[in-house]
Amino acid sequence: MDEQQLIRHALAARERAYAPYSAFRVGSALLDGQGGIHYGCNVENAAYSPTNCAERTALFRAIADGHQPGTFAAIAIAGDTEGPISPCGVCRQVLLELCAPDMPVIMANLKGDIARMTVSGLLPGAFGPNDLLEK
Amino acid sequence: MDEQQLIRHALAARERAYAPYSAFRVGSALLDGQGGIHYGCNVENAAYSPTNCAERTALFRAIADGHQPGTFAAIAIAGDTEGPISPCGVCRQVLLELCAPDMPVIMANLKGDIARMTVSGLLPGAFGPNDLLEK
Amino acid sequence: MDEQQLIRHALAARERAYAPYSAFRVGSALLDGQGGIHYGCNVENAAYSPTNCAERTALFRAIADGHQPGTFAAIAIAGDTEGPISPCGVCRQVLLELCAPDMPVIMANLKGDIARMTVSGLLPGAFGPNDLLEK
Amino acid sequence: MDEQQLIRHALAARERAYAPYSAFRVGSALLDGQGGIHYGCNVENAAYSPTNCAERTALFRAIADGHQPGTFAAIAIAGDTEGPISPCGVCRQVLLELCAPDMPVIMANLKGDIARMTVSGLLPGAFGPNDLLEK
Repeated sequence: MDEQQLIRHALAARERAYAPYSAFRVGSALLDGQGGIHYGCNVENAAYSPTNCAERTALFRAIADGHQPGTFAAIAIAGDTEGPISPCGVCRQVLLELCAPDMPVIMANLKGDIARMTVSGLLPGAFGPNDLLEK
Repeated sequence: MDEQQLIRHALAARERAYAPYSAFRVGSALLDGQGGIHYGCNVENAAYSPTNCAERTALFRAIADGHQPGTFAAIAIAGDTEGPISPCGVCRQVLLELCAPDMPVIMANLKGDIARMTVSGLLPGAFGPNDLLEK
Repeated sequence: MDEQQLIRHALAARERAYAPYSAFRVGSALLDGQGGIHYGCNVENAAYSPTNCAERTALFRAIADGHQPGTFAAIAIAGDTEGPISPCGVCRQVLLELCAPDMPVIMANLKGDIARMTVSGLLPGAFGPNDLLEK
Repeated sequence: MDEQQLIRHALAARERAYAPYSAFRVGSALLDGQGGIHYGCNVENAAYSPTNCAERTALFRAIADGHQPGTFAAIAIAGDTEGPISPCGVCRQVLLELCAPDMPVIMANLKGDIARMTVSGLLPGAFGPNDLLEK
């Protein structure tokens, strides 16, 4: 699957966002190692902190379907931002936990702007599983 | 679908939990208004707070697949607790946001114990969407 | 300290809320076992999920000052709601972790309405430390 | 205040961590613009996601005491990691919301290793307040 297709999937998922508080809708599409697509959107909450972002929705559901951490190929994210939308710190930490460090993260907006980073590039010098488990 | 079947789906989803830190595995199965099942499991994180529970995984993915808040029929949860497993406060808040107040929440453990509550019963006098939006 | 004084402290803390996204300001005042007051307010975040509520701010800071879980006497919460403001599910879970089950939670609004619950009453059949640690 | 002093304050705060689940204790010390110190430690929760980190505890309490976002001078973090401890993605997002982009983040461990980054360096291409508010 090429990058443009994955972005189109993220844009389709964005239509299903539940964002009554911010009206800020985000979609994501996670590509697994077998070519399957896992959709995510943001799901807000009146209490704010229980809100979940599009990227995490896609990652959590893929794990629940039996995919193993570290086996994903790419994720695309799409939102209505001035430049390409960027994942929040919570999502970066979940990407770090569940994806290979060099997995591409493809960021897009509604105007066709695109940016690309890797999972490890999003969290320089990250706190990760080894920090917790080595003790 | 009867209660026992929904619990079996939750137990199956539990097998896919990602719980390297607590070794405490939880599964859930959400029944939508058309009889479809949405699976969830807990997905932990080395940083603890980005961890997601089984119930939320199931709810978020169902929204991402286009189901509307308030249209779900029931959810079952299963874990290895002494009594039937109970949802945490974060999940209760997400259930309140996305489910009808009288939706049944079916709680089970590995020994066959079962308990039942409703979404509104889990959060007496809850803070909810109206509290935020009426202002 | 009487209930009315504790509510006034919560109202004072509310003035310092950081709520640029919801404009919904909440304050709290936690009374410790020695009669000390710990203030909290909500602190929002553009990414929504890292938002912290007033109740949790007060509880976390008291722990950081050396107070032990289970030694608190009461907490008051104040916000601009139609009825007395109620804690969200995340805060209820943190109250359960750090406070005695019968500790009073005093809920108020700007009009002088007051309601009272206990920590255990806020989360019937709660998931708590014993569920995790007994396994 | 010099860097070594701020790290000593973070180490002192670490002693008050509540970490019954991970046994991983972290402390922080936030320096405000008037030279005051705000202590933080991690406060864990049986449900994992309501856990709060040391950095966030310090930041939230400073806001509750009336300090304005963007006025802080530095933060030190200390934990028992192989290299200097690094903030998780959730804390990075809260630092971004409440601190100036060039504020120093001083990371330490128990062996005397130290590393330094800035708030903006911790979240390259961050999602921030402008992304949400410009729409």
